[in-house]
Amino acid sequence: MRLRMEAFVKGLQNRIVNDIEQIDGKQFTRTAWERAEGGEGITCVLQDGNVFEKAGVGISIVYGQLPKAAVEQMRHNRGKDISADGPVPFFAAGISLVIHPHNPNAPTVHLNYRYFEIENPDGTPKMWWFGGGSDLTPSYLYEEDAIHFHQVLKDGCDKYDKKYYGQFKQWCDKYFFIKHRGEARGLGGIFFDDLDDKPADEIFNFIKEMGNRFSLSYIPIVKKRMNMKFTPEMKEWQQIRRGRYVEFNLVWDRGTKFGLETPGARIEAILMSLPLTSRWEYMKEVEEGSREQDLEEVLKNPRDWIPLD
Amino acid sequence: MRLRMEAFVKGLQNRIVNDIEQIDGKQFTRTAWERAEGGEGITCVLQDGNVFEKAGVGISIVYGQLPKAAVEQMRHNRGKDISADGPVPFFAAGISLVIHPHNPNAPTVHLNYRYFEIENPDGTPKMWWFGGGSDLTPSYLYEEDAIHFHQVLKDGCDKYDKKYYGQFKQWCDKYFFIKHRGEARGLGGIFFDDLDDKPADEIFNFIKEMGNRFSLSYIPIVKKRMNMKFTPEMKEWQQIRRGRYVEFNLVWDRGTKFGLETPGARIEAILMSLPLTSRWEYMKEVEEGSREQDLEEVLKNPRDWIPLD
Repeated sequence: MRLRMEAFVKGLQNRIVNDIEQIDGKQFTRTAWERAEGGEGITCVLQDGNVFEKAGVGISIVYGQLPKAAVEQMRHNRGKDISADGPVPFFAAGISLVIHPHNPNAPTVHLNYRYFEIENPDGTPKMWWFGGGSDLTPSYLYEEDAIHFHQVLKDGCDKYDKKYYGQFKQWCDKYFFIKHRGEARGLGGIFFDDLDDKPADEIFNFIKEMGNRFSLSYIPIVKKRMNMKFTPEMKEWQQIRRGRYVEFNLVWDRGTKFGLETPGARIEAILMSLPLTSRWEYMKEVEEGSREQDLEEVLKNPRDWIPLD
Repeated sequence: MRLRMEAFVKGLQNRIVNDIEQIDGKQFTRTAWERAEGGEGITCVLQDGNVFEKAGVGISIVYGQLPKAAVEQMRHNRGKDISADGPVPFFAAGISLVIHPHNPNAPTVHLNYRYFEIENPDGTPKMWWFGGGSDLTPSYLYEEDAIHFHQVLKDGCDKYDKKYYGQFKQWCDKYFFIKHRGEARGLGGIFFDDLDDKPADEIFNFIKEMGNRFSLSYIPIVKKRMNMKFTPEMKEWQQIRRGRYVEFNLVWDRGTKFGLETPGARIEAILMSLPLTSRWEYMKEVEEGSREQDLEEVLKNPRDWIPLD
């Protein structure tokens, strides 16, 4: 599974980077790195492009010894099951991306899929699981975009388990919630962790299905929105929403916290998810009946974009 | 002490707000608020002024029951001494300010002084302490500014205890350290917590001395720098430094974390410290021998700006 997951994330990264370059016309900066303690990765970032303010697509394949506290940050609910006092031998392979377009009509998107193993002393897996998801964060609400994005994810989920979409959609709404603001980060999508309820082969196929659906879910939306007209006021609102994105990532995101608290972590790769620019206004109030208020409304009350089975 | 501290922070807030308004020409927005669980505050924010990008000066006088976990965030080293299973009756009064000027030659400054009490069941103080400090965060290094700022603080400290400045300067360098970047937030100043090594009256006089020194320490610097010429590149560098400020405040600052994790906290007041705008560039590298590198150098190797006794 290690090699298959590694091959998959490398191929997916390539395809996504090519898709984004084709739209933007500017090339990504590709940085290959090695981890002294074991492993490697490729971080691709496109900054201040023609269409995209900042796009980061990274993969990493890492292994070695993980402090128990770090293992607990990597898992949703099962750190307690890992009976160990000291560091735990682990393996992790994953792809992670965040894309922030310039146009305030075009949404930010995030995707992350990962495979994790805790090893026995002989190197065989003692425990394994998959995690991941993808979610959409617009500055302005286009219901049709939300429905399209969720439908593509649901269709993929339904091929593998009719229960997945409903469960993972709820998990996503719960995870990407900015607690101190009392609002969702965006319009959701799917999110899950600790997935090992079927044979690894079957879950791997599901992960591939969802990863491969990325371009189908996002590219049509960005193409439709990237050339729309916008005002300086709309740009300012986008900047404020970017600030909320920063707040979620730095304060609440488990993956980011895990990275920032790991000595020797590659900070530039961890923080590639942050937007190029953002803004914090004191006591920003949106106008009654405005499009900004439409967005706030749906962030405070997450919707089911498509009927759950 | 409660009433005296309350009167002091109110008066100091007024004086600082007036000083800043005089320089800027634009008025602060003043918001008085009440806390349902007990207490009140005044948050003053000046946003997008003539000289200042964002200036926040807030005071709060709060009391009630504090969860033990929150008490531990509020204290440096003595949460363990507070023998209680449930919530702890407390009182806290403090002033907190952050000022971000527009001109990249003019530094950001932060100040915070607070008095804290844990009560006995009969309302008398079971434990009390003071905390606080002030520190300077420039985008460009002017050694004379750093020396001036530290000298004003040292002179104030020396009046009360010859050991204070040396200890609190080190504490500041340690506290305002962006661990994941391996660099200081700025040029330091002083910082301390849990201060109760002398009679409360004497420490209160010290706190007043240091609070009253704010204008003396910062105003001359900002007046000297606010009209200097600067290039768009300097503005961009300032924006990147603002991003680091956001990282420290959202990831590491104990006060901000305490606030964001307290249900029902006044988020706008807590996050008034964030700059109006900021920027994250992937793999930003400064030029060899540039002024940007001079700053990075001193952030990686904090200096003693004035000889320690």
